[in-house]
Amino acid sequence: MRCGAGIDARMVDELAINIDPIQAGGRLTADAMKAVIAYGDGYSVCDNCRTPNRLDYITKPPVAEFHRDLASWLNMDAARVVPGARRGFQAVAHTCVKKGEPVLLTSLSHYTEFLAIEEAGGVACEIPANDQHIVTADAAAATIEDAKKKHGRAPSLAFIDHVDYQYGNIHDVQAIAKVAHQYDIPVLCNGAYTVGIMPVDAKDLGADFVVGSGHKSMAAPAPSGVLAATAEQAKDVFRTTAISGDVTGRKFGIKEPEMMGCTLMGVTLVGMMASFPHVKERVKHFDRELANNRIVTEALRSIGGTTVLSEYPRKHTLTRVDTTASFDTVAQAHKKRGFFLSAALAEKGVVGIIPGATRVWKFNTYGMTTLQAQYLAQVFVGIAGENGLKIS
Amino acid sequence: MRCGAGIDARMVDELAINIDPIQAGGRLTADAMKAVIAYGDGYSVCDNCRTPNRLDYITKPPVAEFHRDLASWLNMDAARVVPGARRGFQAVAHTCVKKGEPVLLTSLSHYTEFLAIEEAGGVACEIPANDQHIVTADAAAATIEDAKKKHGRAPSLAFIDHVDYQYGNIHDVQAIAKVAHQYDIPVLCNGAYTVGIMPVDAKDLGADFVVGSGHKSMAAPAPSGVLAATAEQAKDVFRTTAISGDVTGRKFGIKEPEMMGCTLMGVTLVGMMASFPHVKERVKHFDRELANNRIVTEALRSIGGTTVLSEYPRKHTLTRVDTTASFDTVAQAHKKRGFFLSAALAEKGVVGIIPGATRVWKFNTYGMTTLQAQYLAQVFVGIAGENGLKIS
Repeated sequence: MRCGAGIDARMVDELAINIDPIQAGGRLTADAMKAVIAYGDGYSVCDNCRTPNRLDYITKPPVAEFHRDLASWLNMDAARVVPGARRGFQAVAHTCVKKGEPVLLTSLSHYTEFLAIEEAGGVACEIPANDQHIVTADAAAATIEDAKKKHGRAPSLAFIDHVDYQYGNIHDVQAIAKVAHQYDIPVLCNGAYTVGIMPVDAKDLGADFVVGSGHKSMAAPAPSGVLAATAEQAKDVFRTTAISGDVTGRKFGIKEPEMMGCTLMGVTLVGMMASFPHVKERVKHFDRELANNRIVTEALRSIGGTTVLSEYPRKHTLTRVDTTASFDTVAQAHKKRGFFLSAALAEKGVVGIIPGATRVWKFNTYGMTTLQAQYLAQVFVGIAGENGLKIS
Repeated sequence: MRCGAGIDARMVDELAINIDPIQAGGRLTADAMKAVIAYGDGYSVCDNCRTPNRLDYITKPPVAEFHRDLASWLNMDAARVVPGARRGFQAVAHTCVKKGEPVLLTSLSHYTEFLAIEEAGGVACEIPANDQHIVTADAAAATIEDAKKKHGRAPSLAFIDHVDYQYGNIHDVQAIAKVAHQYDIPVLCNGAYTVGIMPVDAKDLGADFVVGSGHKSMAAPAPSGVLAATAEQAKDVFRTTAISGDVTGRKFGIKEPEMMGCTLMGVTLVGMMASFPHVKERVKHFDRELANNRIVTEALRSIGGTTVLSEYPRKHTLTRVDTTASFDTVAQAHKKRGFFLSAALAEKGVVGIIPGATRVWKFNTYGMTTLQAQYLAQVFVGIAGENGLKIS
């Protein structure tokens, strides 16, 4: 099937069980799909934009209400939608960080946090994760002290991943924020893998900012996301424009420069909004997701030589495994080499791991039914057995 | 009809003739609608992302090819997709402008160009448009000289709107660029109203950058757009990241900080791509659009007291009119006051002008059939006649 312009219709999630680590939380709900069809056209949410002209003031569709709900759901004072979590990082870094200032992040941080620091002219200071791939408050304190010595001042911002993209481990944002606040360092909690997946209470975490990703974890089209802030920080990051025209004297009212004015004027926003009631509900049932993950992870652990590199038992569905001593030993002799695993999975209707990967790789069970998890577990064990690996 | 979450299905363009000034060029093509349905899910274009991991290297769907085609279509050396034209302005301003430096734009510039300057810490210097609301090369030269005197240096960047949002007038980018280049000022041609609407040859215009809007003028979902640059400027604005992890030593390869890495990972990009063959074709037939615009504009001019504020004859379909001495005189005595006009239009199946506006307002005839233009012309004249205005 074709959509024109050489684009094949995508049917990945219709035809297979997709365990791609970044795609699981971004599949649209049925309501979002309806909204996407109704609001596909360019500026489709702007029909009823009235003074003051800004996206988050539109009442039909209920964009204003959505913004209030988003903030309160995250237990923050103000929220804005952004074109991806990364644009939230960029806005906060540009607001808080001046050229040459140290900025905290972690040895597990996502590259977009580094880019946000680079764009702001800051200096990246990684808090090293420990041997269990967990970032601790003690390590944060040590890194802050180091940064102070090296740069003559405390970092001007800390990016702390609630759950990191590498291991899917949960980090103690609350304890780290407590330490950071002793040095007056505002904390951005990167919830790209948690906002929309599990409950996030930003004030309870002690975060000054929380960022979420629509297309990664809120069942929304790309690019979309949310930046929420405390009242104190919102004053700065959501400040209104101060520039004016030197000839015309024009001013630009309530437009917010860090947002570049309005952000998501159509399908992306309405997709987020339509999924939102479902997302609010699903975060309450993350225990079911972990139970499904356990079925799959236990099956992998039963394959001799396989180790789970993520913290165990799992507290998140994104999981990193090492199959160097299991599937990779098969790959050495297999005529398809490393591609045997993804090929065997595809034959059984499972997609989403990087073709060729048989050593260290990630998967995500989020959104599966228990039957699908059981099936996936059987598939992994079956492939292992067929290829002569021991099952315990 | 409802999409859930209190969102009514939008049927504006299905049920009415929509003359909204900013929406006309952003209506999806049928192919884009198909693509939107197939690629609604979050990271839907990332299924086949392989090393090097960057959006514009993906070959399935043909994202890489689309980037090459976009650049060559605009007669530029490199192109990237961005979440709206404004994010293109932001990237270029951040690259070219240092704190305190003067930046040229015009008295007709869009607020997002001001915000881009504000974000970069630049000082906005407006080139005044003349009495005919046209920005000339002479005025540009005078403003550059003024800026030099005032700021001790020539501006570090010039934003020149190919067609401005206020009058829909065409400005002589070529002549202005020639002047700017005499002072080594790089020129960003803002094609938000032209790229995807009429032919744009960036090198012929002498532009160093050209920016287009997907949701405004390329029949694409929001937020989307394009930033294209000459080889010389591309080296800077599309430079790759230089930051690294101080603990891990991580580097981030070919990610581009001004793009914040990947930009449009799903529905927005695929919508642009699916519409692209149609967009390439439609720009060749802009004369038909102007002919339709003439039918409507002439009808408005036939209503006593109505003047067209945009340049005349029209060279673009976005048109600003003054009906203070025609429809507004009706509004003074009408029981619906200023709302009589939008209400009367809506009754005849025409939407898109700001409710209540009867003095100075804008409309856009882009994308209409000739029959629709003729009908719209009759509707305007009919409403005028029914309300006792003279028709010549």
